[in-house]
Amino acid sequence: MTRPRPLIPRPDAADSVGVVGEFGLIARVVARSGTAALADVGPGDDAAVVRTPDGRVVACTDVLVEGRHFRRDWSSAEDVGHKAAAANLADVAAMGAVPTALLVGLACPAGTPAAWLEDVASGMAEECERFGAAVVGGDTSASAPDSSAVVLSVTALGDLQGRSPVLRSGARPGDVVAVAGRLGWSACGLAVLRRGFHSPIAAVSAHRRPTPPYAAGPAAADAGATSMCDTSDGLLADAGHLAADSDVLIDLDRAALAAGFLDPVGPLAQVAAALGGDPMAWVLTGGEDHALVATFPDEVELPAGWTTIGTVSAVPAGGEPGVRVDGVPAVRVAEDLGEGTGHVHFG
Amino acid sequence: MTRPRPLIPRPDAADSVGVVGEFGLIARVVARSGTAALADVGPGDDAAVVRTPDGRVVACTDVLVEGRHFRRDWSSAEDVGHKAAAANLADVAAMGAVPTALLVGLACPAGTPAAWLEDVASGMAEECERFGAAVVGGDTSASAPDSSAVVLSVTALGDLQGRSPVLRSGARPGDVVAVAGRLGWSACGLAVLRRGFHSPIAAVSAHRRPTPPYAAGPAAADAGATSMCDTSDGLLADAGHLAADSDVLIDLDRAALAAGFLDPVGPLAQVAAALGGDPMAWVLTGGEDHALVATFPDEVELPAGWTTIGTVSAVPAGGEPGVRVDGVPAVRVAEDLGEGTGHVHFG
Repeated sequence: MTRPRPLIPRPDAADSVGVVGEFGLIARVVARSGTAALADVGPGDDAAVVRTPDGRVVACTDVLVEGRHFRRDWSSAEDVGHKAAAANLADVAAMGAVPTALLVGLACPAGTPAAWLEDVASGMAEECERFGAAVVGGDTSASAPDSSAVVLSVTALGDLQGRSPVLRSGARPGDVVAVAGRLGWSACGLAVLRRGFHSPIAAVSAHRRPTPPYAAGPAAADAGATSMCDTSDGLLADAGHLAADSDVLIDLDRAALAAGFLDPVGPLAQVAAALGGDPMAWVLTGGEDHALVATFPDEVELPAGWTTIGTVSAVPAGGEPGVRVDGVPAVRVAEDLGEGTGHVHFG
Repeated sequence: MTRPRPLIPRPDAADSVGVVGEFGLIARVVARSGTAALADVGPGDDAAVVRTPDGRVVACTDVLVEGRHFRRDWSSAEDVGHKAAAANLADVAAMGAVPTALLVGLACPAGTPAAWLEDVASGMAEECERFGAAVVGGDTSASAPDSSAVVLSVTALGDLQGRSPVLRSGARPGDVVAVAGRLGWSACGLAVLRRGFHSPIAAVSAHRRPTPPYAAGPAAADAGATSMCDTSDGLLADAGHLAADSDVLIDLDRAALAAGFLDPVGPLAQVAAALGGDPMAWVLTGGEDHALVATFPDEVELPAGWTTIGTVSAVPAGGEPGVRVDGVPAVRVAEDLGEGTGHVHFG
C-alpha cells in the first residue's frame, strides 16, 4: 500500500484533540455514541456494566491501524467507524451471538481533529444501533511520539441468547460447507482505490463499509451449524481455520462459488476485466467482507442467506487437514491466482 | 519525557514478529497466558465466551502507548504486562467487582521480538492469576508504517458477585473520603528514572509494576461505599471526578494524607529531599499507582486497608463542585506545588 499523505493538522490547531483535551473529546464522542439497551452503566465511570441475560458473555477484540486497515483519504470518518465496529460485530455473529456493547481504545496524534473522531463515533453508533448496542466505554491516549497514525482497538460484547457457541472445531466429515454474505467485494474495492479510481461505487463502498450478514450467525447456530467463523482474512484462510481446528478436509467447489458469488455482470467481473485479472482471486482470498463460513450436517436445510460451496471429509491416513478447491490444495490455488491464502498481518 | 532509544530490530530479524508471523506469535503468546476459570471458550476462536455468574459483566479498556506509558529501556516486558493488566484490573475493582478475563489489542512493529511479547503475556498472566482470570482473546496488527512503538489496548471483564456497582456519582454530604493503596509512588519512581537513576528500588518498582489494592474495591462495596474510583490520574484529579459526578465538595486533610501516605523515612521523602521537592506533590497529583478513592457514610467502619483523608460537604449556593485541600481549591494547590491536577493525556 502506498503511504497515505499526512492528514493530521498541528497539535495546536483549533478543534484538535490536543486543544480540546481528553475530557472534552470524551464528552463529544459520548454524545454521538447512543445508548446500549443492556447497559446498566455506560461511559463515564471506571467501567461499564452490561447485563448478560444468557449468563455468559461473548467478547472479542479487533485492532485497526491507519495506513494498514484504512486511509483517511480513502474512507470518511464515518466509514472508519462503521468498519471498526463491523469487524468486531461480525466476530460476535460468528459465535452465534448478538452484539450488546462495544468498548474502544484509541491512540491518536494530538493534532487529530476532534470532529473527525466524533464522526468515527457516529459511524460506530450507526453500525451498532440495529442490535440496540452502543459504545459503553473506552480510553484515549496520544499516539506514540513518532507516529501520525490513528490506532483503534475495538472490543465487542455479545449475548448468546441461550445458544451454544458455534466453534471453529466442530466440523465433521459429511457436513456441507456454506457461506453467508459477500466474498471479494472489499478486496476488489481496495484494488480500485489503489489504482486511484473511485468506481464501481458498490465495490469501493464494500471496502469502506463492509456489510457482514449479522443475522446469519445466530440463524446458523439455531439451524445446527457444527462450526463457523468470520472470513476476515479471506475464504481460503478462514476455511483453513475450520479445517485445522476440526481436523478435517474441506473441499470447495469452484463452480458453486462462481454461481453463488460471481455475478458475471457484477462489479467483481467488471473490475477484473478492466484490470486483466481473475475475479475468483478476490472471492477466494479477499478479506474484510466479513462473510461467515460455516459447516452444517448434510440433512439440515440451510437458513436464508446461506449458499452451499463445498463439503467436509475425513483427513486420509498420513494426510493433513486443509482446504482444497476442486481437489487442488489451497496453497497451490492461491499461487496459481498470484495471491497468498489470505491477509498477511505483519507483511 | 525524553525520547526512548530505538529498541526494535529489523523486521527480518530472527524471532521478530515479521518472521514468526501472526499465527506463530499468537500460539506463543497464548502458551504463556494461563486459563481463565470462568472461560467456556478461550483464545483461538472468533470470540471468547466467559461465564457471568452475576448476570451482568463489568468491562473497561485502557490504552498503553510505548513512549507515553512505558519505555522498554525502563521496564522489562514482564513489567509492561503487569502494568497493562493492573491499570484495567484496578478499574474493575473500583466498581466493586472481581476480574474474570482480559482481551488484548496489540499493534507493534514487524521487528518486535516475539520473545518480548511472550514476556508481556507472562506479566499479564501473573497479574491476573490471583483472580483466576487470564487473557481470553485479542488481536494483533503491525503498527502504523511510520511508527516504531508498541500500542497495547487491554479490556478487562469482571463480575460483581451480586454487589451493586459503586459509581462515581453517589457521594453525599456528610460522607467521609478514604483511600486504599499507595499514592505518589509511581510518580516518584518515574522522577527517579527520568533523572537516570534506578533507586530507591521500591519507588522504581512501583512505577514499573503498580500494586493496586484490588480486594479493597469489593470490600468497600460490601461496606456501603457511596462512590469510588481508581486514582489512575492522581488523587486531586480523581477525587475531582467523584466531586463533579456527585455534585459535592470534597475536603481533603493534608495532615491525614501526610500521616497515612508519607512515611518520613520512606522513599518519597528520601527522593524528594534529594531532588529538593515536596513529596506531597506526588501524593496529591501522581497517577498510575491505581489506589482507590471512595466515600463512605460517616457511621461506617472502614474495611481493612482504607484510610480516612477527608470529608464530603454540600456545594454552597452559587458555588461549584470540586476538591479542596485544607480549604484551598485543588487548582491552586497544584499550582503551588508546581504540578497540574493530574495526568494530561494529550499534552
